[in-house]
Amino acid sequence: MTNLWGSRMEKDLDREVKEFSTSIPEDFLLYKYDVWGSAAHCKMLEKVGMISEKESKEILRGLREIFREIEEGKIDPSPFEDIHSLVEIRLRDMIGEEIGGKLHTARSRNDQVVLDERLFLREKIGEMAEGINFVQEALLQKAQENKDVVMPGYTHLQPAQPVLFAHHLLAYFFMLQRDVERLEDARKRVNVLPLGSGALSGTSLPIDREYVAKLLSFPRVQENSMDAVSDRDFILEILGALSILFLHLSRWGEEIVLWSSPAFNFLEIDDAFTTGSSIMPQKKNPDVAELLRGKTGEVVSSWVSLTITLKGLPLTYNRDLQQDKPPLFRAVRETLSSLHIAARLTQNVFPNRESMKKALSIGFLTATDLCEYLVEQGVPFRQAHAWVGEIVKKLSSTGKCLRDLRKEDWGEYQNLFPQNWEEIIDEEKSVRRKASQGSTSPQEVEKEIKKGKELLAQSRELVYSWRRREKESWENLVGENCVF
Amino acid sequence: MTNLWGSRMEKDLDREVKEFSTSIPEDFLLYKYDVWGSAAHCKMLEKVGMISEKESKEILRGLREIFREIEEGKIDPSPFEDIHSLVEIRLRDMIGEEIGGKLHTARSRNDQVVLDERLFLREKIGEMAEGINFVQEALLQKAQENKDVVMPGYTHLQPAQPVLFAHHLLAYFFMLQRDVERLEDARKRVNVLPLGSGALSGTSLPIDREYVAKLLSFPRVQENSMDAVSDRDFILEILGALSILFLHLSRWGEEIVLWSSPAFNFLEIDDAFTTGSSIMPQKKNPDVAELLRGKTGEVVSSWVSLTITLKGLPLTYNRDLQQDKPPLFRAVRETLSSLHIAARLTQNVFPNRESMKKALSIGFLTATDLCEYLVEQGVPFRQAHAWVGEIVKKLSSTGKCLRDLRKEDWGEYQNLFPQNWEEIIDEEKSVRRKASQGSTSPQEVEKEIKKGKELLAQSRELVYSWRRREKESWENLVGENCVF
Amino acid sequence: MTNLWGSRMEKDLDREVKEFSTSIPEDFLLYKYDVWGSAAHCKMLEKVGMISEKESKEILRGLREIFREIEEGKIDPSPFEDIHSLVEIRLRDMIGEEIGGKLHTARSRNDQVVLDERLFLREKIGEMAEGINFVQEALLQKAQENKDVVMPGYTHLQPAQPVLFAHHLLAYFFMLQRDVERLEDARKRVNVLPLGSGALSGTSLPIDREYVAKLLSFPRVQENSMDAVSDRDFILEILGALSILFLHLSRWGEEIVLWSSPAFNFLEIDDAFTTGSSIMPQKKNPDVAELLRGKTGEVVSSWVSLTITLKGLPLTYNRDLQQDKPPLFRAVRETLSSLHIAARLTQNVFPNRESMKKALSIGFLTATDLCEYLVEQGVPFRQAHAWVGEIVKKLSSTGKCLRDLRKEDWGEYQNLFPQNWEEIIDEEKSVRRKASQGSTSPQEVEKEIKKGKELLAQSRELVYSWRRREKESWENLVGENCVF
Amino acid sequence: MTNLWGSRMEKDLDREVKEFSTSIPEDFLLYKYDVWGSAAHCKMLEKVGMISEKESKEILRGLREIFREIEEGKIDPSPFEDIHSLVEIRLRDMIGEEIGGKLHTARSRNDQVVLDERLFLREKIGEMAEGINFVQEALLQKAQENKDVVMPGYTHLQPAQPVLFAHHLLAYFFMLQRDVERLEDARKRVNVLPLGSGALSGTSLPIDREYVAKLLSFPRVQENSMDAVSDRDFILEILGALSILFLHLSRWGEEIVLWSSPAFNFLEIDDAFTTGSSIMPQKKNPDVAELLRGKTGEVVSSWVSLTITLKGLPLTYNRDLQQDKPPLFRAVRETLSSLHIAARLTQNVFPNRESMKKALSIGFLTATDLCEYLVEQGVPFRQAHAWVGEIVKKLSSTGKCLRDLRKEDWGEYQNLFPQNWEEIIDEEKSVRRKASQGSTSPQEVEKEIKKGKELLAQSRELVYSWRRREKESWENLVGENCVF
Repeated sequence: MTNLWGSRMEKDLDREVKEFSTSIPEDFLLYKYDVWGSAAHCKMLEKVGMISEKESKEILRGLREIFREIEEGKIDPSPFEDIHSLVEIRLRDMIGEEIGGKLHTARSRNDQVVLDERLFLREKIGEMAEGINFVQEALLQKAQENKDVVMPGYTHLQPAQPVLFAHHLLAYFFMLQRDVERLEDARKRVNVLPLGSGALSGTSLPIDREYVAKLLSFPRVQENSMDAVSDRDFILEILGALSILFLHLSRWGEEIVLWSSPAFNFLEIDDAFTTGSSIMPQKKNPDVAELLRGKTGEVVSSWVSLTITLKGLPLTYNRDLQQDKPPLFRAVRETLSSLHIAARLTQNVFPNRESMKKALSIGFLTATDLCEYLVEQGVPFRQAHAWVGEIVKKLSSTGKCLRDLRKEDWGEYQNLFPQNWEEIIDEEKSVRRKASQGSTSPQEVEKEIKKGKELLAQSRELVYSWRRREKESWENLVGENCVF
Repeated sequence: MTNLWGSRMEKDLDREVKEFSTSIPEDFLLYKYDVWGSAAHCKMLEKVGMISEKESKEILRGLREIFREIEEGKIDPSPFEDIHSLVEIRLRDMIGEEIGGKLHTARSRNDQVVLDERLFLREKIGEMAEGINFVQEALLQKAQENKDVVMPGYTHLQPAQPVLFAHHLLAYFFMLQRDVERLEDARKRVNVLPLGSGALSGTSLPIDREYVAKLLSFPRVQENSMDAVSDRDFILEILGALSILFLHLSRWGEEIVLWSSPAFNFLEIDDAFTTGSSIMPQKKNPDVAELLRGKTGEVVSSWVSLTITLKGLPLTYNRDLQQDKPPLFRAVRETLSSLHIAARLTQNVFPNRESMKKALSIGFLTATDLCEYLVEQGVPFRQAHAWVGEIVKKLSSTGKCLRDLRKEDWGEYQNLFPQNWEEIIDEEKSVRRKASQGSTSPQEVEKEIKKGKELLAQSRELVYSWRRREKESWENLVGENCVF
Repeated sequence: MTNLWGSRMEKDLDREVKEFSTSIPEDFLLYKYDVWGSAAHCKMLEKVGMISEKESKEILRGLREIFREIEEGKIDPSPFEDIHSLVEIRLRDMIGEEIGGKLHTARSRNDQVVLDERLFLREKIGEMAEGINFVQEALLQKAQENKDVVMPGYTHLQPAQPVLFAHHLLAYFFMLQRDVERLEDARKRVNVLPLGSGALSGTSLPIDREYVAKLLSFPRVQENSMDAVSDRDFILEILGALSILFLHLSRWGEEIVLWSSPAFNFLEIDDAFTTGSSIMPQKKNPDVAELLRGKTGEVVSSWVSLTITLKGLPLTYNRDLQQDKPPLFRAVRETLSSLHIAARLTQNVFPNRESMKKALSIGFLTATDLCEYLVEQGVPFRQAHAWVGEIVKKLSSTGKCLRDLRKEDWGEYQNLFPQNWEEIIDEEKSVRRKASQGSTSPQEVEKEIKKGKELLAQSRELVYSWRRREKESWENLVGENCVF
Repeated sequence: MTNLWGSRMEKDLDREVKEFSTSIPEDFLLYKYDVWGSAAHCKMLEKVGMISEKESKEILRGLREIFREIEEGKIDPSPFEDIHSLVEIRLRDMIGEEIGGKLHTARSRNDQVVLDERLFLREKIGEMAEGINFVQEALLQKAQENKDVVMPGYTHLQPAQPVLFAHHLLAYFFMLQRDVERLEDARKRVNVLPLGSGALSGTSLPIDREYVAKLLSFPRVQENSMDAVSDRDFILEILGALSILFLHLSRWGEEIVLWSSPAFNFLEIDDAFTTGSSIMPQKKNPDVAELLRGKTGEVVSSWVSLTITLKGLPLTYNRDLQQDKPPLFRAVRETLSSLHIAARLTQNVFPNRESMKKALSIGFLTATDLCEYLVEQGVPFRQAHAWVGEIVKKLSSTGKCLRDLRKEDWGEYQNLFPQNWEEIIDEEKSVRRKASQGSTSPQEVEKEIKKGKELLAQSRELVYSWRRREKESWENLVGENCVF
């Protein structure tokens, strides 16, 4: 027997139906969490007297053994309906029907599967937050190493104003910071105990959910049993947060692709991070950046997949919910590998100062500085803007740039022509002149870096505290000779 | 002139391009927030000495006047490129180029538009949270009024175990509670000041962003100017939260549709909430519930729309970002109207106790209770499950139900046949017997209701405090004779 | 060496980058098509004199050998960058660099990969069309076996008018027919030769694309080389068609779930197609139908995934395009297995005539028949509708149904009270009375069945002719001892 | 009364429910099609004798009058539930209940609304096909005017091989050609008559659906009445086709953005098609191209919206289906305006030959030509590729380009050093040397242009024939003084 429910049917499950409906190829990777949650359930059954201390020990021994067997590749999962069946059936084989058959007391797969998913996701949130921090650190490091590099800042992909390369990188740092915060916030709603909700309505047996919560380090138990077994919000919320994260990576990927194109030539990518062509021997392609951008579709669509699955489902558990796993596992897997590689790619791109400097001279990048100068002289901004616009039109129509500016170009405003005009239109000076909080000036960028370091340190501290509590729970329940 | 940038071009904007690219049909509804933010900017310019007190007063007077003109429908928005142009151009008309032309000092539409969106969304989050609270209150009320109604609980749309109707309703209460919490969390990332980031790099003028933040009641300013003008995460996060909310409404809608079908006949919908057919005179259709379910597509796809827009955009502002408004405004509008109607629909559905009671007798709903009885007698759960399965198979194959159970059906387990078997299989007693936290027993449901009331009160208090601060800011800056 | 392009780089590809960027876990399953296309390319190179007959024979022998090795599981794909590298490198190992190194002449992986995908998809379109036909056949068969079963037809899940169960089933037949037609139409745009487009611009070598097209049985070659290597429309179009197909399956799944619920009790599902519960021994759940409904998310989101990947990509090939494979392969795999199981499920559901008959009496199903009777007597339809509506209101408010109708209920219309009113309101007679084309009357349903059979026969003939041509091409090029 | 079904309800529809559920703000724009279909229905009722010739004339007169009233803005739609109610109620007001009340005989809003949508979409397909043709024509024209312009072709946004600017433009021509073909194919499934299906089951009245089909120029009637009223595939299929179209526009938009950036400087956009900045006076932004790219989200998500709405709906009509209109109308509106502006933008971009020429010298664009030369000398391609790769590495490491190539760089291959190496590496000659079908050589591009013109002519002829038939139908049924 490889499922947990056969007794009332007249026939065995059709072979093809079994193949179609099994979730083991997907949920096998939940084995750690199934063992973990089962151990806590077992301890609780012991505590409330539903099994004896001896039975409890036997079950825990069996669970540990199963964990090790799986880790060592000794169990073939394919005959089982799902990971829960595998663990329970193997347990009964191992320690006998009499004791093994007691583990599922006051538990349903409906509350068990969401427990497993919550344990899985809680742990992965920590890993993903670390992954984001790793990219953030790479950005911070790269910013710090290149503090004095000035480049054109763009709007509409047109040169707009000069900015520090470091400031541009730090924009990504703060985007990613929100991604970490979203994971932290979502974690509060992941980190809630569903177990003890039974199939949908709870149980008449004298279980102790608060005790299970304590064993598994959940700060709260879910309030309503019907909600608990129907709820997949916690997955959707994470998938939504990962989608935004990937949008950020797609933008960073796009910029690396643009900047490493000879058209811009702003970045050099280390050869070890580029690939070539099967036909064009000269090619050196920014494949990693392209893949980061391209994988966005898979992650965003994971969220879409699950929303479609959930739409219009009546309460409580419906088998459709099994389809939460492919998008969840896919998104988490892509996220972990992409973050790691995004961090390393960031470490392996190098600004080309020469090209950036050259690009600064194109596009009247400091025209706004002229406006601001006029404003300081008391000209209303809107007039200053119109006036400088006229000057740019004149220069541009004769192929000139701001450096070709002469006093006589200022017509009626000649009295306002600045003595230090060369300083005003100098792009590096423009950057240094910026005064506002959060601007691209070196001193503000310095503050951003400082703030960034603090945020990183806090984030790491937090993830570390999560991990510590999770590890403790595992070690108390399963640990003995079983690596976390 | 109906835009703010014409001076450097050789030609006017093509008429069709103007029509294609204008955002005024969408962003006109931001007028309140554009006036609000402009007033704060003006006050700050005064404080740092970039405009005089007299100029500041003139500008504020003008802004108030424009607000009133728009409220009274006196301004035709159609010739303008966007709401920012409308406000500034109208202001210059009204108080003169000299003073009016100073308002845009040290400001760009790039930071202005996200400020407006953040002010809009911050206010709407409050309204949407109230909308959710309204539905929650209706559920709580309905649960309280029907505390003793027992019905079949379903998994796979098959009868599973008896539950309280109130417990089922409260499942939705707690789903919606998460929706409120998600809005609260997202609000932290909405409630950040972007103004002062300029076009992308900040400004050399001596602005005071902290002061603007204080005036507008933002607890924080955004750290990086390039991020500030590129960032639309705060919209996506809200759209994601609303999508999950609508999935909940779609499930509730589905259940109302199912339950008001004669097949179930569990709910009666008030006639005022149903519609008929143009051809079949007998029809009484649950249209409102269907529309709640059906509108899910529009809200979920709003999130999709914006993710696609953002994917792969280089920093900083790109005109694509204008496309954030249609999905945002659509989703907020649908949410506000759907929540209101969902609450009223919930008030206007009435459980049909008779039908529910009748349905309790179908489907061996208390088979699990028999198992739990056996477990209490020391039978391992897995054996109990197998055993009761056999009994169900036997009864079911002869068209019998649990009430037809006889001692002789228990074969080898006859010694375990319960004296009080009729009590055990009684559905109402089953519900009362439930003991676990969060289960469907009357005492647990009572606790849920109590908890629900506390959560509602907290949520209202919070929303009220948001509103109070927003109102104060408005009244200090614009208020005089201008309703919040 | 496990890639095809290393020579210009200073360093080897980073190990983690290699792992991140490899597509072999996905595209390994294209091996058959890579061999097939390579064989055609080889033949063409021979024909135009770029390789000798002897070289061509060697290459073809090698390709056949590689195909067999892979079929027999003798090649470990993991070290390779992609399937194209695997085939070429293995070939060079096998027949030597001198000859093996000539196969990639005038070919790029950019045109090769889309060729492989087109060959794959062309073949799978045939299999998927057969899968749909299989479901259609099951519906037709089930309709034919139950021609006289009458049931309530629903709008808004409210009883509307009586219909034949067969008519209801045939609605799905005709939905699926459109799915087949969409695949047929899309196939025209799949069935076009990209090979010979080179990396992006074609080649100076004297290749013969028409000859390759003939060898591979493509009726057309793609007109523009840059389009050819950038184009993934053909995949999107198929994913779009499969999404609609799954919406149809989701509706059928929903109805099976509803109808097998005791609330309706219209369908009995064979035990071999249901599953049970780990905790509730009595459960018999329609899991297969739920999974068909639930898998919709995965297929629809595959389309979404690829649209996001493609959005905003400049021409021509970008590495992002590698991400076309996961959604494509996922959707095709889910489709093939779901169609097979959907057909078998359809065969294994059985209408419960008793319950259907009983349900016919609820809900005034023949009220429209009364209207139509009045219309035949000359009453304007709108008046008839209003009148019958009044009668329904009266009956319904006193708990009566149409069978309780009495002449005196007709008030001012008593002169129009039909003699044969019992016949008019009889649900089975209502069905037989239907006269319009495509209606639910037995004679029209008979015509639908006839039409259905013709369409099925045509569809099969077509798919057969596709397969024949594909098989011929394979056998001519690779076949010798290599099964199609 | 503003709805068509009130009679059986005890209460009026709640005012807020009415507001929530009305579709008139959306479907009012179907008025033309509602009048059109109603006229055909009326003619048919006359033909089969269900209304008299006189009644028919009255009804037709009334319908024409209503059409004119609406065109002239004389009807306030807001009190009505939907466009069908508006037309029927206004008709009854105008020509009396007695006759007006007969129009809805043997018709339901369920078949009527899909008829209206099909008539709408059929007409819009023609307009959208014309819109695409307009863009295609602009591309063709631009290609023809710039036949001799050579530019770098890109893969991975890295220079790959030289191509003709015209060839690049024509890639878009052929993409768009598939978009037209998809619309043509989808039109077959739009162009089917649903009317006569009644609410869901057909009718007992002696209607003649083939006659209605003939009057409305539908080649087929739908075979199954239940399918007919539930089916929204035809909308989804069009939304899917428009999504692919917008992906093409997004790619073209991206390239215009890239190429008009000074980094590339390949395109000059006419000033009338660019906009400026409110703060930076020098800006000239490619907003139109950005918006074309940015609007992709709205169109793709329209498809997503409708798939979500349809997922899991049981047959037949459910009110959820009303939600088909917002995404449909949104997508069609965006498509028509975007195509028009995309065509005009294409006409208003001008290649900058100088910059393109300069860019040709960067990136070893003709390295593949050297390989092909070696292949012609008998070197196996893979060796040639490796060899040229080495040369590129050597040149590149010393900052040299292909023009710096010397015989001594060829090491062991010196005997193969081509006499005419300068010719081989010349980018313009490379383009001319291309020989393969569909390649970038001038003669192949000439063929593409010729083929393009033929396809355009065919497409126009086809659209013209559609329009002619639609116009005839309208004029026969409604026309008299009513403009098509």
